[in-house]
Amino acid sequence: MTTLRQDQPLTDDTTRELLSSLLRDWHGRGWVSGTGGGICGPTQDGNLFLAPTGVHKELVRPDDFFVVSPADGRVLRQPKTAGLRPSECNSIFCLIWRERGARSIAHSHSLSAVLAGDLAADGDNLTISELEMLKGIRGLSNRDVHRVPVIDNTAREPELVAQLSGVLADERFAGSFAVLVRDHGAYIWGADVWEAKRHVEVYQFLFDATVARRGRALKESPR
Amino acid sequence: MTTLRQDQPLTDDTTRELLSSLLRDWHGRGWVSGTGGGICGPTQDGNLFLAPTGVHKELVRPDDFFVVSPADGRVLRQPKTAGLRPSECNSIFCLIWRERGARSIAHSHSLSAVLAGDLAADGDNLTISELEMLKGIRGLSNRDVHRVPVIDNTAREPELVAQLSGVLADERFAGSFAVLVRDHGAYIWGADVWEAKRHVEVYQFLFDATVARRGRALKESPR
Amino acid sequence: MTTLRQDQPLTDDTTRELLSSLLRDWHGRGWVSGTGGGICGPTQDGNLFLAPTGVHKELVRPDDFFVVSPADGRVLRQPKTAGLRPSECNSIFCLIWRERGARSIAHSHSLSAVLAGDLAADGDNLTISELEMLKGIRGLSNRDVHRVPVIDNTAREPELVAQLSGVLADERFAGSFAVLVRDHGAYIWGADVWEAKRHVEVYQFLFDATVARRGRALKESPR
Amino acid sequence: MTTLRQDQPLTDDTTRELLSSLLRDWHGRGWVSGTGGGICGPTQDGNLFLAPTGVHKELVRPDDFFVVSPADGRVLRQPKTAGLRPSECNSIFCLIWRERGARSIAHSHSLSAVLAGDLAADGDNLTISELEMLKGIRGLSNRDVHRVPVIDNTAREPELVAQLSGVLADERFAGSFAVLVRDHGAYIWGADVWEAKRHVEVYQFLFDATVARRGRALKESPR
Repeated sequence: MTTLRQDQPLTDDTTRELLSSLLRDWHGRGWVSGTGGGICGPTQDGNLFLAPTGVHKELVRPDDFFVVSPADGRVLRQPKTAGLRPSECNSIFCLIWRERGARSIAHSHSLSAVLAGDLAADGDNLTISELEMLKGIRGLSNRDVHRVPVIDNTAREPELVAQLSGVLADERFAGSFAVLVRDHGAYIWGADVWEAKRHVEVYQFLFDATVARRGRALKESPR
Repeated sequence: MTTLRQDQPLTDDTTRELLSSLLRDWHGRGWVSGTGGGICGPTQDGNLFLAPTGVHKELVRPDDFFVVSPADGRVLRQPKTAGLRPSECNSIFCLIWRERGARSIAHSHSLSAVLAGDLAADGDNLTISELEMLKGIRGLSNRDVHRVPVIDNTAREPELVAQLSGVLADERFAGSFAVLVRDHGAYIWGADVWEAKRHVEVYQFLFDATVARRGRALKESPR
Repeated sequence: MTTLRQDQPLTDDTTRELLSSLLRDWHGRGWVSGTGGGICGPTQDGNLFLAPTGVHKELVRPDDFFVVSPADGRVLRQPKTAGLRPSECNSIFCLIWRERGARSIAHSHSLSAVLAGDLAADGDNLTISELEMLKGIRGLSNRDVHRVPVIDNTAREPELVAQLSGVLADERFAGSFAVLVRDHGAYIWGADVWEAKRHVEVYQFLFDATVARRGRALKESPR
Repeated sequence: MTTLRQDQPLTDDTTRELLSSLLRDWHGRGWVSGTGGGICGPTQDGNLFLAPTGVHKELVRPDDFFVVSPADGRVLRQPKTAGLRPSECNSIFCLIWRERGARSIAHSHSLSAVLAGDLAADGDNLTISELEMLKGIRGLSNRDVHRVPVIDNTAREPELVAQLSGVLADERFAGSFAVLVRDHGAYIWGADVWEAKRHVEVYQFLFDATVARRGRALKESPR
């Protein structure tokens, strides 16, 4: 767990330290296992710290982050650590950055995100409702019926961009800070790293709760 | 986990330290995720240390607690840390403090509290029985049928006060140290911080066990 | 987790340190929540270190253990820490010590022990089979059908002694290092603290696996 | 969790340190409970560091590893710690080392591996598909239908060698880095320790996801 103070502004150094500590925490919870998942956050000069790909995420250090231009995903600065490649999430993170004003985006590989995606079946979204925890999403009340878009998985992550553009432009999903990718996981974001952290924890809870409740409903319903 | 000794009296300093460490421990268990949940405990001069709202609870530090008058919820002392607002639980915590003599109250946002609330369906309480762990609740034996009141969620937390007053005055629930809020979580309390900690762990276990057993009963029952 | 070496003999000091660290580890796993559960281990002069009752078990320190005579449960030495009372498990631990040559006995309050006890329904034992992990129990092969006795819960722990005497004398359960108590948990033991630790972890796994498999069987069976 | 850098070559010292830390991490997750499970990794001179048998795996220290010849499983160097015996996995690890070019092999005793093996019923393999996490296995895409061989448990681990030889030679399983052993667990490997770590985490996720989805399918399917 981070020892940073949440009441003090983040610098480039503390942003990298916080991103690194979030990956460590999330690995412990099974959300970024087996080198899966990723994260990005803002530099002070308006660019994006991006985690490397193909590495054990809980072992990513503050010196391992790329600096990337959110305009086009171009790598502006290599990490101090040699031999790393930028995350496959690069183009997706930049898209969400530009379209939603997100400054920190996480990619979760959690089991509950996969099972939540399953609940959508052939539909293009998952509805979440009747949960106080909805308030943890910026702009929502606990009375809202929240729609999280669900897109199909593709062979490679950058190929998700077209579908993702579609759902980010879809009015029905204007209030969502997450996109579920079927069989894969979720992208979850916030205006800054602290909000992204909060949204990640909240959506994981919402996914868990919705999966648990639907499972029960299936058992209770007459056949 | 705290390194405080449970056999020594708490001072204002150690109370704040303990409250902070409990939030950290509970966050690890998923009971106060996404800035949800809260806690309070007693000051030595008869007031109440109250956690701030809208912050990551596992990062709340000993210097982040407000001092509040349990008589009316008025803030008597701001925390050393600037820019914080007192928990939305304020009026609820003060009510439980006055009505039940509780000196430490926790607000859990755990999934098992939500699922336990679901079990009440349209009823106004959940019955818990046939569990040794009931002895962990002050005044109960393992032969008791324990009724935990379940109230409806409201748009904002202070609006729960009216319903809460009702169940706290209800003879059927005189032995309960918890109130479940549908779709939301639970308020759980004790005479001091150590008892509140014990009651939180015990009720979480009772909720988990009751949810698991009812799920099984549904599967086993003929249709 | 302990930093003790498992290849070196335990002294009185390291025994108390190990017992304390096991309670801490088990609390993290939910096996001794809410002040529930307990543990004992051997002193070098043939008596028994006993944890105190009514305290948060993960906070029990090496100085908090009583020394008790296994012959009759008499307290021979008070812990250095004042104000503690010996565990309610005292008479049960002493019985198992004498009847089975156990020198370390744990009392688990885990949910899976409760759910495993439920599986016995009206029967007096739970059968566990077809699991490699059975080998983790001294004397068993993975081909064995292992019977763990299940006794009824009583109002107070010392009242379990009569039933416990019965099952410890029952030939069918001669190979068991555990007794399940319905609605309550389990007593699990070993010849020394390391074996008790192993048996605790193994039985928890066996309970989990058996509960998961029976649940599936119920779902799969035709109705 | 290890503090080693994943971007720097492992030496004999850091290999032993990493193997030790992986056992510690996996014990926390319930994959090597009760002295079960095991691990090996490469020495710099082309042999194999092998964990001891019959000990609590999370307490295995860097000095506790044997050096074994992968050609025949002969012990070349005893661990510095006296009194240990080499893992029962020895012959299996050496077989996988030779047949698959694996240089690090783990033996998991996880519950999800047991439940995944159950899914094969009378078949000789488990199919895993429609999961992005398949990409975490070397050579696989998320479109693959991945077949993991499932073999029957035997009285003693070395007796698994014959069946294991069979499945390692079976063309259908050429892409698998894991073998499930019914009622027992799994062997999972990689070209080096970091890949073995990744494959272990990925297969555990794949087992969990497949078990969760099949359980749901059973509940949802008409009868």
